[in-house]
Amino acid sequence: MPHMTPDEFRALGAQMVERIARYMEEVDGLPVTPTTRPGDVAALLPDAPPESPEAWDDVFADVERVVMPHVTHWQHPGFFGFFPCNATGPSILADMLSTGLGVQGMLWSTSPAATEIEWKVLDWLAQCIGLPECFRLTGGAPGPKGVIQGTASEALLACLIAARERARHSAGAESLDPSRCAVYASAEAHSSMLKAALLLGLPRENLRLIGVDGALRMRADALERAIGADRAAGVTPLLVCATLGTTSSGAVDPLPALGAVAQREGVWLHVDAAYAGAALVCPEHRWMIEGAARADSFNFNPHKWLLTSFDCSALWLRDPLALRNAMSVTPEYLRNEASDSGRVVDYRDWQIPLGRRFRSLKLWFTLRHYGVSGLRAHIEEHVRSAEVFESLVRADDRFEVAAPRSLSLVCFRLRGGDDRTRELHRRVNATREVFLTHTTLPPDGEPEGARRYVLRMAIGAVRTREGHVRGAWDVIRREAEGL
Amino acid sequence: MPHMTPDEFRALGAQMVERIARYMEEVDGLPVTPTTRPGDVAALLPDAPPESPEAWDDVFADVERVVMPHVTHWQHPGFFGFFPCNATGPSILADMLSTGLGVQGMLWSTSPAATEIEWKVLDWLAQCIGLPECFRLTGGAPGPKGVIQGTASEALLACLIAARERARHSAGAESLDPSRCAVYASAEAHSSMLKAALLLGLPRENLRLIGVDGALRMRADALERAIGADRAAGVTPLLVCATLGTTSSGAVDPLPALGAVAQREGVWLHVDAAYAGAALVCPEHRWMIEGAARADSFNFNPHKWLLTSFDCSALWLRDPLALRNAMSVTPEYLRNEASDSGRVVDYRDWQIPLGRRFRSLKLWFTLRHYGVSGLRAHIEEHVRSAEVFESLVRADDRFEVAAPRSLSLVCFRLRGGDDRTRELHRRVNATREVFLTHTTLPPDGEPEGARRYVLRMAIGAVRTREGHVRGAWDVIRREAEGL
Repeated sequence: MPHMTPDEFRALGAQMVERIARYMEEVDGLPVTPTTRPGDVAALLPDAPPESPEAWDDVFADVERVVMPHVTHWQHPGFFGFFPCNATGPSILADMLSTGLGVQGMLWSTSPAATEIEWKVLDWLAQCIGLPECFRLTGGAPGPKGVIQGTASEALLACLIAARERARHSAGAESLDPSRCAVYASAEAHSSMLKAALLLGLPRENLRLIGVDGALRMRADALERAIGADRAAGVTPLLVCATLGTTSSGAVDPLPALGAVAQREGVWLHVDAAYAGAALVCPEHRWMIEGAARADSFNFNPHKWLLTSFDCSALWLRDPLALRNAMSVTPEYLRNEASDSGRVVDYRDWQIPLGRRFRSLKLWFTLRHYGVSGLRAHIEEHVRSAEVFESLVRADDRFEVAAPRSLSLVCFRLRGGDDRTRELHRRVNATREVFLTHTTLPPDGEPEGARRYVLRMAIGAVRTREGHVRGAWDVIRREAEGL
Repeated sequence: MPHMTPDEFRALGAQMVERIARYMEEVDGLPVTPTTRPGDVAALLPDAPPESPEAWDDVFADVERVVMPHVTHWQHPGFFGFFPCNATGPSILADMLSTGLGVQGMLWSTSPAATEIEWKVLDWLAQCIGLPECFRLTGGAPGPKGVIQGTASEALLACLIAARERARHSAGAESLDPSRCAVYASAEAHSSMLKAALLLGLPRENLRLIGVDGALRMRADALERAIGADRAAGVTPLLVCATLGTTSSGAVDPLPALGAVAQREGVWLHVDAAYAGAALVCPEHRWMIEGAARADSFNFNPHKWLLTSFDCSALWLRDPLALRNAMSVTPEYLRNEASDSGRVVDYRDWQIPLGRRFRSLKLWFTLRHYGVSGLRAHIEEHVRSAEVFESLVRADDRFEVAAPRSLSLVCFRLRGGDDRTRELHRRVNATREVFLTHTTLPPDGEPEGARRYVLRMAIGAVRTREGHVRGAWDVIRREAEGL
């Protein structure tokens, strides 16, 4: 058996560490995006697996031949697309350990450290971002409130299922007809809301897209009317998804007003702060979570902008029992003394999958390596850079800011028809010096207006400094010249 | 900002590699399970996160102080619980690279290498295990058929959703009432089937538990009757889940007969080979997938017994469009030229989450490092060890084999009442030399008989050799003496 010996692993591990370190050094100088055409990568691989073991040198050489020329460099300081996906030294090291130990954290008993570090560090994180007491270990019914999910999509789906089960239980029904259930989010909410609703079998239109105000924030009065109309028609409202920092423009839904409606109507309130939640480490941004004490669930992604490697999506529940009631199925072969005692948390009951990695290690190491002060400095630097970028856009008459800057996200466009901005986008990305993605937004302050093509400058890659942001603006300006 | 410099990462990465290498050397000599009591680990952590950055030495020291004493060693050669969860040199190294690059594979364009290596290597894997042509790149409508999911639970849920959408579409309905839908699996199927049904809102009893034969295999005649009864009652059959290698006893449902029923009835056939699928690398075990060409989806976990680190659950679909139709939601901010061209695969549409890691790297490296011959040798060694264990049990009059050995799983018990086996189980695990989990099974050949407490000897940890299996038997025999 060609198992790798510990000594071989030592040597090859050092080689891989060296390759990653070199990547950290070189990524700034690489083109941010590849020029791959569909099928290019697949064509580099043989059609069949090797019958005999291959030499590691040949395997490792393919990192340069097959992988590196064909990846999009999310860690490049010129990556301004989508939202960032951070990877940092401490979280990479922690993740190495997680993979090296190869433990399964599905039950407390299958690795107590994996479970207890998770709930403890999630409580640290709740403190870092100033979450209300109800999401703390000590709040409400004392006990763990936090859990790491893979992604915000999974967190939202899990909460929607818990909300449906709560509504089903209240109705005393054995099942709810999805065509008689509704969920609520603003028209600016992430597509994961529609996906979650469809996955649960709701007709597309049973996601009620609630109108927004001039700043693209969900309107509480419109929400209230929509819920009222559904109740009157015998439709069961399941969940309201409030967004802190929408993907398109970073709009922040008003939690105090939405929370009041949700509470009055007895509807589950989920807060999706996937991107913006990281900014809550800075007290000056905590106005966003005023009213969060009325939420049933709160989610954000440390893997986006809080220096933790993917995947790490933090979810807190006011009442974790609602989730566990929806997720827990216990066959004989998963029973054990610790679980039967009721004195431990089994995270398999807090998520859709059964198995789970030791993901808390990377969050734990990252929080300690940076300290809360380091996290704050990281966020502040990017917000400051975004302010600089915004002022540069405003100072150039050819451009307009398309929505109020939100944290480190600036939406902008060329004045005039969409075609010019679309062509600018194409040219800017073709430089491969920077990478931006786009969205459509209504004109600022006119939520009902026709949507227009808009570029998103989403600042948040670990290596991005003000200089890179100014450099990106130079690229954009230069490419706009020729138009 | 206390970002780790590349040189710091070099030094600390080498330190972590050394720690993992030492773990590989030492794990055999550690107690397989910890003696942790609930709360022990949490008590070792402060109640609040550090305001200032902590020295790495302090962080790293906690690996010894907090983590290592409180993990269950899944990589220990004496770990015989649940099913194995493999971690090996090549897959650990590949996973390091995945985390180090920090790329997001949600769209083809967000890292072409992540997507194309995945569908290519899944086709390699399909060849390794002898899947029928319909699951190959070249089969049916040519194109990628395989995708890596996190776990078998997620794969099953995704397929159930696709099946429901197909049924909904056939019915021309805007939604299906879950109380009028049913799914089918044997009473021995994994709890993920019930969990998936409940997550989609089906009443518990709408999972029809189909009777089994004397070898605990689902009975095709009983399945056909159940589907017929449901159709007659106006209930829509959504999915049949056939298991190759049940968790309790490794029973293998008869695909030819079940496939014929599913095909005749037009019901989605999902094959859950989570554990046993790995054994298909050996031609002598391929009798299990005779008839698999009638399945709609086929899933097994390379992270269980095929030397690949968690998480890596391989799923193939005869018609991936059925999955994509159920999962695809495209907001403006995810649109891009490559996706619009229709010439690429965007794996976000093949799964529940949006984001995804570069998981194909670890499968690719592992298949190449071992070669198909190495994978076969690995499986053969464990099956041989299980044969040895079975013969040892049979040779001892105090014991009985509780179900026919299946691959590397042997179910056994002490003759007599459950209490003796339960007490033996407690004593054996208390030695911390080996770790076994249990289940309940009816008496061999009497599927309707009262279930009895049974120990599961699940051989599959990377380091487990025949000597460890004989050693485990010595422990079990010794502990049985005192009873």
